[in-house]
Amino acid sequence: MVTTLKRLLIGRPLKTREIGHAKIGVIKGMAVMTPDALSSVAYATDQMELVLASVIGAASSKAYISNVLGFSMLGTFIIVALAFLLYFAYRSIIQEYPRGGGAYAIGLHDLGKYWGLSAASTLIVGYTLTVAVSIAAGIDAIGPVIPLIGHHKLIVNIVLTLMIMLINLRGTSESANVFVPFTYIFIGCILLLGATAVVKALIHPSSIHVPSLTGMHAVQGMGLFLFLRMFASGCSALTGVEAVSNSVPVFKEPSPARAQRLLLTLVVTLSVLFMIVSGTSMLHGLKYNPDVPLINQESMILFGTHGFGYIVTVIVSMSTMCILAIAANTAFTGCPALWSSMARDGFMPRWLLHKGDRLVYSNGIVFLTLISLILTIGFDAKVSGLMPLYGVSVFYTFSVSQLGMLVRTLRNREGKWVSRACGSGCGFALTAAACLIFGITRFTSGAWLVIVCVPLMVIMFSKIQRHYREIREELKYDFSRPLQPDRDSITLVPIASVNKSSVHALEYALANFKHVVAVSVIAQNSQEEADEVERTLRAQWERLNSGVRLVVIHSQYRSVARRIQRFVDLELDRYDPEDITVVVPQFITKKWWHTLLHNKTGSILMAWLVLSKSVKVIAVPYRLKR
Amino acid sequence: MVTTLKRLLIGRPLKTREIGHAKIGVIKGMAVMTPDALSSVAYATDQMELVLASVIGAASSKAYISNVLGFSMLGTFIIVALAFLLYFAYRSIIQEYPRGGGAYAIGLHDLGKYWGLSAASTLIVGYTLTVAVSIAAGIDAIGPVIPLIGHHKLIVNIVLTLMIMLINLRGTSESANVFVPFTYIFIGCILLLGATAVVKALIHPSSIHVPSLTGMHAVQGMGLFLFLRMFASGCSALTGVEAVSNSVPVFKEPSPARAQRLLLTLVVTLSVLFMIVSGTSMLHGLKYNPDVPLINQESMILFGTHGFGYIVTVIVSMSTMCILAIAANTAFTGCPALWSSMARDGFMPRWLLHKGDRLVYSNGIVFLTLISLILTIGFDAKVSGLMPLYGVSVFYTFSVSQLGMLVRTLRNREGKWVSRACGSGCGFALTAAACLIFGITRFTSGAWLVIVCVPLMVIMFSKIQRHYREIREELKYDFSRPLQPDRDSITLVPIASVNKSSVHALEYALANFKHVVAVSVIAQNSQEEADEVERTLRAQWERLNSGVRLVVIHSQYRSVARRIQRFVDLELDRYDPEDITVVVPQFITKKWWHTLLHNKTGSILMAWLVLSKSVKVIAVPYRLKR
Repeated sequence: MVTTLKRLLIGRPLKTREIGHAKIGVIKGMAVMTPDALSSVAYATDQMELVLASVIGAASSKAYISNVLGFSMLGTFIIVALAFLLYFAYRSIIQEYPRGGGAYAIGLHDLGKYWGLSAASTLIVGYTLTVAVSIAAGIDAIGPVIPLIGHHKLIVNIVLTLMIMLINLRGTSESANVFVPFTYIFIGCILLLGATAVVKALIHPSSIHVPSLTGMHAVQGMGLFLFLRMFASGCSALTGVEAVSNSVPVFKEPSPARAQRLLLTLVVTLSVLFMIVSGTSMLHGLKYNPDVPLINQESMILFGTHGFGYIVTVIVSMSTMCILAIAANTAFTGCPALWSSMARDGFMPRWLLHKGDRLVYSNGIVFLTLISLILTIGFDAKVSGLMPLYGVSVFYTFSVSQLGMLVRTLRNREGKWVSRACGSGCGFALTAAACLIFGITRFTSGAWLVIVCVPLMVIMFSKIQRHYREIREELKYDFSRPLQPDRDSITLVPIASVNKSSVHALEYALANFKHVVAVSVIAQNSQEEADEVERTLRAQWERLNSGVRLVVIHSQYRSVARRIQRFVDLELDRYDPEDITVVVPQFITKKWWHTLLHNKTGSILMAWLVLSKSVKVIAVPYRLKR
Repeated sequence: MVTTLKRLLIGRPLKTREIGHAKIGVIKGMAVMTPDALSSVAYATDQMELVLASVIGAASSKAYISNVLGFSMLGTFIIVALAFLLYFAYRSIIQEYPRGGGAYAIGLHDLGKYWGLSAASTLIVGYTLTVAVSIAAGIDAIGPVIPLIGHHKLIVNIVLTLMIMLINLRGTSESANVFVPFTYIFIGCILLLGATAVVKALIHPSSIHVPSLTGMHAVQGMGLFLFLRMFASGCSALTGVEAVSNSVPVFKEPSPARAQRLLLTLVVTLSVLFMIVSGTSMLHGLKYNPDVPLINQESMILFGTHGFGYIVTVIVSMSTMCILAIAANTAFTGCPALWSSMARDGFMPRWLLHKGDRLVYSNGIVFLTLISLILTIGFDAKVSGLMPLYGVSVFYTFSVSQLGMLVRTLRNREGKWVSRACGSGCGFALTAAACLIFGITRFTSGAWLVIVCVPLMVIMFSKIQRHYREIREELKYDFSRPLQPDRDSITLVPIASVNKSSVHALEYALANFKHVVAVSVIAQNSQEEADEVERTLRAQWERLNSGVRLVVIHSQYRSVARRIQRFVDLELDRYDPEDITVVVPQFITKKWWHTLLHNKTGSILMAWLVLSKSVKVIAVPYRLKR
């Protein structure tokens, strides 16, 4: 039944050599790995303008706003440059670590265990938050449009999380099929927005305001710190770039090359989309508005708010909402892959290492779902308050990967190592700066949590690794020790009376075990009653003629299970408890409620024996026909 | 740990022959079995006057009220007479059924199965309601006095129920010790009330009003139906009389004689107390008041409301509250005993038959607690609305026992059978009338529930009995069938690698089992990897030199458990699944969280095998030292 349901939900189990079919190319890769990064385009510009809002007055002219937004455009260019630096760094990482792992792998191998583990911890924090935050963000965005969803956010959230889990359990390729349309429609929408903006600018040059250098100089209150804060906020556009390097092996052969190609596609697309959104906003002097995201403002200005233009505007905002919601999928691809890499190195439980029936890391997917559901249900809507925390973790990861590449390049000094070292160094400086800025400016609003969580996680991973190492040593078999196959052993069959169930168990014991003894506990109100019961039992036993010795114990108490345990303790003390086996006859009733009618002596006995001793216990069920 | 806690809470286990110490005499018997009956004195007169309230106007004179209450006194006399009839009936029942059972036993044996079962069902309904209702009533009574209790009624109720359960689990004699003072203080209080009333009446004859026959004739609107309703309400004084006959064996030897003596003491005490309460009310013309019970009104009039008299008044009302709350204990003594009688006849689960560690029916006590907690939590305060239902069940039980005695007397015709038959017949007529009146007048307010529940319970008991009969037949061993002790059997030891845990399991299997085969499942990404793993494993196996054959299976899927199950299904098909045993090596980690780090292959395998086949499974734990 369970098997059938499982097949229905996630499909038939795949053979290991079918892995080829389960792998994906660049086009599908875009759908499963990039929604997180692409969706950040939908809010990165907003984040920058939010910081800049302090230097814009309520009465500021459009031209003045455009001048201010010139800084956000400058930030955008730097971030795009940074994206390309990251591309080169991760390109090399993918080359060096084709089994995946990303910043974790390079940190672990090029910088040292704690660098790798701290990068992994921040990544895991980021991934789990991505699931919780992005689904909640998507629902928040759709909420006002569809009230039914707005009123049952928590339930919708849980259902959506479970749906994404199921889709991912069906396999990487299958989940890509689901997400492909959403991803490309979103990309198409933003490109259309850009094209329209360019066309409009060419047709009506007067409708736009190009900021001038003098104009930007005239902006009041614009300092370096503000600019850095803005830059750090804008860097949220880069979240999710890491995912590709974590899950290299899901690509078709040659995996590294395909992963690199996807990474390039992602960085280029991301840059283009980001520049479109920031640029359009700057040219039209659109102010930050907490209720209407910039993308919506832009599409309203460019396509209009009625007729055909309105439909396009609606499509743009719907596709934005969808990409926000499916951003969670990036985590479902990246995180289980990261865990698998960590499990291979012994830092995570071994059950996260292997692939499940559909050749995806099923255990990891389910585990991630569990964590994110706990976060969602535990923190409810407050999850979005954890966003700053998220920035710190992303940039810490980037810093580690850049530093790792720098160290590696300096160590190997091959090819054009100077320029590559400069690139990595520059990247490290920028990302480390962003990380610091984030950490300091947002310390009280959540970033401190990273500083608490990450060390705890690192300690946990180290402990896990030590445990595996110790177990491996302890379980190592010493071949010089002689095997002891002929120890003295005894098998007990407790019986209440001679009936089909107990004889069934006795026959099983005789067929399988070497040395069988039957034992019966008699607990009656008086000695006469007890003697009478023993006489009857012994007579039946004689008639059975099994050749097995029957030990009858009289109990002054009324607990059969405890008496047998005492018998094992006291009278079988010449045997090693390891070599005593108790074969417990049990009958299985046909209807569930019938089990309520029977003494659970067998089960109680088993529980007692298992809990208190090394005695082995085996149940021999006799299935009743009615 | 659990054992220690249990000892602390309920004491050391008692030997069966220590039963003598655990039994009780008449004095303690009063404390454990009579609170239900005695506490009903506290509200029976109120119940009668509630019915009579319709013929009393707001402006009626004290003399007129006394005349009306003359009828309630008349009712009281009839009920006292009935109580003595019940005494004679139950006296014979105790004689005839010294193992307990009361109306259930006489109904079952003298009238037929369904009479007995229906009496038992109504008794069980009554007992479970007693627990729920009386504890709630006690709390309701104490609530206004101690607000802390009033505000947390449900929690106090649960705690009190569990406390009474624990006290009862400690043994009958021990629980009696707890309840003795409350019972006798209550009896003393009412006797003091009576004595004071008599003294006052003698000193100030003018303060009382003795109703005259002419005065009673002059009461307007007093008809037969009203009188019968009043009588039926007053009969609630008789609830709880049944309990003694259900638990005869808890008395010291000679149990029946002591039980009969207790029953007589109970009936006499009950009659005296009831007459005191009704009489005082009549002589002082005290009207029914929903807020102030008659006992309180009487003590206020007799002892006064200030000074020393006030203290006596408070003691009277406190002792009334306590006796209400501990009325529940009657059910804790009677109901498990009744269940045990029923289990002996096969109508209830067998685990209700035997006594527990402290020689009380522990399972029954816990089961009763569970039911009453479900009632309390499920229905909350509404339980008190079920009181009418309660009356029907009490009188149905009485009717069955009287009818049973009648039939028995007419059948045997021994001694003074005519007078005894008249007594039983008269008792039957009265109790059956009360049952009918209750059933009809209170049908819509809850009595219908009895008419629904009782047949369902009777059906359930019959089904249980049939199940036991069928099982007994099905399990009966056919001695003509030859024993099959030498069937072909096989024992599998699944191993992942040669390590201490798997060798430990192998050694156990070799020491105990006749025919051992090791099996290993290899699931790797490529054929080469798999071959390499197999080579290593085989080399280690050779080195181990156990003489056991090792079967290596390559799996194209990644589930080891499922592959072994397929191996059992397909390649061991020449064995009866009954004769295949799988010995599963498992290692037990030292810290609980370590178990989270290991693949549960062993456990999963066991679950798969147990669920899907008749294959026997045995776990061989290897305890890790760190």
